[in-house]
Amino acid sequence: MDPDGVAKAFVDHYYTTFDTNRAALVGLYQEGSMLTFEGDKYMGAAAITQKLTSLPFAACKHQVTTVDCQPSGLAGGMLVFVSGALQVGEGEHPLKFSQMFHLMPVGPGNFYVQNDMFRLNYG
Amino acid sequence: MDPDGVAKAFVDHYYTTFDTNRAALVGLYQEGSMLTFEGDKYMGAAAITQKLTSLPFAACKHQVTTVDCQPSGLAGGMLVFVSGALQVGEGEHPLKFSQMFHLMPVGPGNFYVQNDMFRLNYG
Repeated sequence: MDPDGVAKAFVDHYYTTFDTNRAALVGLYQEGSMLTFEGDKYMGAAAITQKLTSLPFAACKHQVTTVDCQPSGLAGGMLVFVSGALQVGEGEHPLKFSQMFHLMPVGPGNFYVQNDMFRLNYG
Repeated sequence: MDPDGVAKAFVDHYYTTFDTNRAALVGLYQEGSMLTFEGDKYMGAAAITQKLTSLPFAACKHQVTTVDCQPSGLAGGMLVFVSGALQVGEGEHPLKFSQMFHLMPVGPGNFYVQNDMFRLNYG
């Protein structure tokens, strides 16, 4: 699969997991992984998953608008830059967001998230 | 300077250069640098600067809203994630944007841009 295809497949997998079984995101992070969520910093799969599963909404749905990717200049690392909208409740107005991931390979076609930064785009 | 301070200093320098002397951005990229601008890809300092200096507005002003940063997991590399607004003409409505940079060190406290991805956030 080409890098753009890999990035899109990762993004689909990530947000589908987020929207249907948020606790399972733990498998996508490792001990040295970092999340910056609206400016707050978390390190390690456990702390990151704790943050994501404690966000103040039970159900949500991500809709992806754009996915860009580039190799990060290292052995097989990939930078993925996403824009989209997040709906956090029935009938609520979707919130625009931007997010970037730095993926590192753990095997052929298999990646974990080394870096994750998320921001809502306030209008 | 701490990593957040380095990131903010870089971002200030980058957008001040962009807004006052866009052609001088060439010094911040190298041969292997990559830009993805609204989905279009450019590689190398010359091609990137050619793109940035040929954008269809003569004057512009970036206003930065948020700057997040994380080490990229390599020797001294840094990921910088920016949100802000871009005004491209007198009295025009500012355009929201998100941009990410992967900075690599070229000496103590000195970085070049290895990866650059830019997107306007359409309302």
